[in-house]
Amino acid sequence: MEQRIRTRFTERFAIAHPVMLAPMDKVAGGKLAGAVSQAGGLGLIGGGYGDAAWLERAFAEAGNAAVGVGFITWSVMRQPALIEQALARRPAALMVSFGDGEEAVAAARAASVPTIWQVHRLSQAEQALAAGVDVIVVQGQEAGGHGMDRGLTALLPAVRDLAGDGQIVLAAGGLADGRGLAAALMLGADGVMLGTRFWASREAEGSEAAKAALVGATGDQTLRSKVFDVARNADWPWEFTGRTVDNAFSRQWHGDLEGLQRSFESERARYDAADPDDYDIRVLIAGESLDLIREIAPAEMIVTDVVRQAADLLGRAGGFLAAP
Amino acid sequence: MEQRIRTRFTERFAIAHPVMLAPMDKVAGGKLAGAVSQAGGLGLIGGGYGDAAWLERAFAEAGNAAVGVGFITWSVMRQPALIEQALARRPAALMVSFGDGEEAVAAARAASVPTIWQVHRLSQAEQALAAGVDVIVVQGQEAGGHGMDRGLTALLPAVRDLAGDGQIVLAAGGLADGRGLAAALMLGADGVMLGTRFWASREAEGSEAAKAALVGATGDQTLRSKVFDVARNADWPWEFTGRTVDNAFSRQWHGDLEGLQRSFESERARYDAADPDDYDIRVLIAGESLDLIREIAPAEMIVTDVVRQAADLLGRAGGFLAAP
Repeated sequence: MEQRIRTRFTERFAIAHPVMLAPMDKVAGGKLAGAVSQAGGLGLIGGGYGDAAWLERAFAEAGNAAVGVGFITWSVMRQPALIEQALARRPAALMVSFGDGEEAVAAARAASVPTIWQVHRLSQAEQALAAGVDVIVVQGQEAGGHGMDRGLTALLPAVRDLAGDGQIVLAAGGLADGRGLAAALMLGADGVMLGTRFWASREAEGSEAAKAALVGATGDQTLRSKVFDVARNADWPWEFTGRTVDNAFSRQWHGDLEGLQRSFESERARYDAADPDDYDIRVLIAGESLDLIREIAPAEMIVTDVVRQAADLLGRAGGFLAAP
Repeated sequence: MEQRIRTRFTERFAIAHPVMLAPMDKVAGGKLAGAVSQAGGLGLIGGGYGDAAWLERAFAEAGNAAVGVGFITWSVMRQPALIEQALARRPAALMVSFGDGEEAVAAARAASVPTIWQVHRLSQAEQALAAGVDVIVVQGQEAGGHGMDRGLTALLPAVRDLAGDGQIVLAAGGLADGRGLAAALMLGADGVMLGTRFWASREAEGSEAAKAALVGATGDQTLRSKVFDVARNADWPWEFTGRTVDNAFSRQWHGDLEGLQRSFESERARYDAADPDDYDIRVLIAGESLDLIREIAPAEMIVTDVVRQAADLLGRAGGFLAAP
């Protein structure tokens, strides 16, 4: 019989499995978020920088599944009406990442919507706890997309020690299978948030070419850099870097950001003129867990496989012990 | 009754606990390495860049304890007589890190000394496997001292998948307690190599001021950078960066290495003139696991506490499972 993993997270959200979908901007649409929730996890729509029409469509496409929504904090706070729009849909949770989430958390609490705050440093965990969030996501630098420089292995137990036993804490960064879930639980987490693994799913929004490129790349080929923020003139605060699959464009400019800034007009034009699926120049966001991803899978299979492998490892963990 | 954790690593080396001391240059002397081995782990002397007299003293100070030795590959290969000197002491293992270790591994194999090779990327694991090493150490970028940019959480299971079930694999980087050991086992490791945790031990070589600074600092305060290699004119290949506790010197120059190179003569003089315990300017090597280190402890207590906590977690891991 299939076994389940029960944690503070599954209890609090009344879900079957401690697996949450990262709210990847424009990748985690309603179809993917709905599929993850239908599979027993918690699906989060990727509200990203904020796009009211896209958000509305995503909630609609999630259908009857209970999904949450996540935003890029510094961006969505420029258009707080989006927070109200999201809360009006009664999401399963509201998640904020990258910046001061106090106002968004307060709005969600007032609407009785559970709150999630992603942190990348111990000091940010203190801030999130002070805001009274329901869930802290600890994201290591292994993760795809924007983040910071700290790895998961020390930061996660440090956040647990800071937050105490009652706090729900999820782990993210470099995790894609049941080994990652089992390890996260040992480090003090109550579950995992998976990004890249779900990006390489059938239900993710994105081209087949992009997904094929994910399966073909390895963790060694990923790079955390400011290159694509500079090339796209993104407003990202400088301390947040982005992990992507390395390519000719990032190899050219990663070590020479000032040169890229000097050549900005022509390089921006070259970038924009490239085919959207030309990943020699275009950004392909992915984390180090690419090593563990060998096929595009349905979201339900991903959830099931992760949980089955983790349950097997946890069930056999006592086998490491030997009487002296 | 105290429980033990049995893995391929403990079986192969006939040791009680799957805990290895990182061969930290000039920190892991014979006293520390001997204490770790006496406690049931595997102590490695930090052969570092190579210093015949220091090495001889370290082996002598280890006494009757079975200890190994680790070298910085690219440096020791400039003075291969040190390898022969170390092998003549019949070490428990010879470890190489940072560079092409084939020759050192071949020499150790010829002397029937077990071999260990530290890797930081999946491509390096392929190289180590091709050389026929007995143990691969997977070091994440969370680690103190020199390393590379990949985190532990994805690289470790990827190396396991590459190496197959029979290979002994150890985990390093950001690990300092039993949670880290238990997590490493879930990710596919056969044990852990601890650096910073043992640096903050009574037996480590180093000043009391340095150790006090370690206990007072946090993981957020560490930085992976080329600053101190440049300031000290070290020969390190550029791809290897070093994690240290951030200080006024690294804050000044981390973002302006070219400026540091231009001001090299005066900055080198300023660095050299500083008090050896002035950690506002001097390098203090440490990893992100500082968050988890709250006291200077005897090495035996560290080994015992790590294993006890891990055994407890592994023994209770089945408690996460619930029938559906």
